[in-house]
Amino acid sequence: MLDEKKVKQIVGEVLKQIDLQDRIKPGTIPVGVSGRHIHLAQEDLETLFGPGYKLKVMKDLSQPGQFAAEECVMLVGKKGVIEKCRILGPVRKATQIEISVTDSFALGIPAVVRDSGDTKGSPGLIVVGPKGAVNLKEGVIVAARHLHMHTREAEKFGLKDMDRISIKTSGPKAVVFCNVLVRVNDQFALDFHIDTDEANAGNVKTGDRVEIIA
Amino acid sequence: MLDEKKVKQIVGEVLKQIDLQDRIKPGTIPVGVSGRHIHLAQEDLETLFGPGYKLKVMKDLSQPGQFAAEECVMLVGKKGVIEKCRILGPVRKATQIEISVTDSFALGIPAVVRDSGDTKGSPGLIVVGPKGAVNLKEGVIVAARHLHMHTREAEKFGLKDMDRISIKTSGPKAVVFCNVLVRVNDQFALDFHIDTDEANAGNVKTGDRVEIIA
Repeated sequence: MLDEKKVKQIVGEVLKQIDLQDRIKPGTIPVGVSGRHIHLAQEDLETLFGPGYKLKVMKDLSQPGQFAAEECVMLVGKKGVIEKCRILGPVRKATQIEISVTDSFALGIPAVVRDSGDTKGSPGLIVVGPKGAVNLKEGVIVAARHLHMHTREAEKFGLKDMDRISIKTSGPKAVVFCNVLVRVNDQFALDFHIDTDEANAGNVKTGDRVEIIA
Repeated sequence: MLDEKKVKQIVGEVLKQIDLQDRIKPGTIPVGVSGRHIHLAQEDLETLFGPGYKLKVMKDLSQPGQFAAEECVMLVGKKGVIEKCRILGPVRKATQIEISVTDSFALGIPAVVRDSGDTKGSPGLIVVGPKGAVNLKEGVIVAARHLHMHTREAEKFGLKDMDRISIKTSGPKAVVFCNVLVRVNDQFALDFHIDTDEANAGNVKTGDRVEIIA
């Protein structure tokens, strides 16, 4: 067990050192800010948009095969409504909605922080599309911040799938994001995914560079 | 100059140690989340609410003598309007508006991070009240996160006025807020002031406890 005073002293020295390094060389991880979005199961897509409906690609995302669709839906919570929630494709096995803590206040539902795919027991809400509504029983999460990387990059960084790391931004609103989940896959591109609250707290935007510090 | 790999290893060990300590004992600094607000000069208060106007106290704040007023104003930026911005009293020498980065996007003005009082060259906007409008030339800032403490507490923590420290929250969305400005005064109460983006990024609320780590 380290002595608390000693711990604080070491952290202080180390953080100062890192700040210095930030000024010397730019960070190496690009930031991708995720706005609120919904992944839909085919069944729910058809309830909302009609039988046999297929999503239209608006823009490819940083992860290969993933795209922002032209279509949006409306989210209806106990306290409020969010009129525009972008659909991301392609369709998945289960419908999942990823919101920010700010959105959770607007909708009036609990902010439940989960890794993507881990939706058991999470809140639900009503999703409304042009052809119908889905009363989602669960699947609304605040997605835990995570870092996508290709297998080759993981080797370079000395990291493996499901590791938890810390990532630091720079500037006057610099923050260290703790508990960043590392996802490694041969299909992934290097990208640090945070939500809009996290981006605005650190005053960073998509494409800014950040640093792995631990 | 420390070796980068060594630095990362030490930070990793120290952060793990601190996480462990978080589970053993609660943090010692209370959080105060500041929503957007405006401090008004008497002249501007009178333009907005009429000659000789005096603010009505709605609620006392954590810092002695400071209060949230019953009155609100409207903020009008180039891109959008924020209909409700709380006035904090008492009146000050100069009008200052404190917004979040999220608000800066809604209003369409740059997010300029400053310590309170340092408004030279910051953006302006139009402030509208029931009796008139003020075309503020400058004074709109994203207030830098800061920690108020009484002189006695500063001695206890080994800190002095204008120090910059790091403060860590706990939980799955744990963050370390870097560059926290320490403000020490015989009139201050212990309170870590962050804005709504920062609170939501870390999923903390007013009254939660956090820890000084460096």
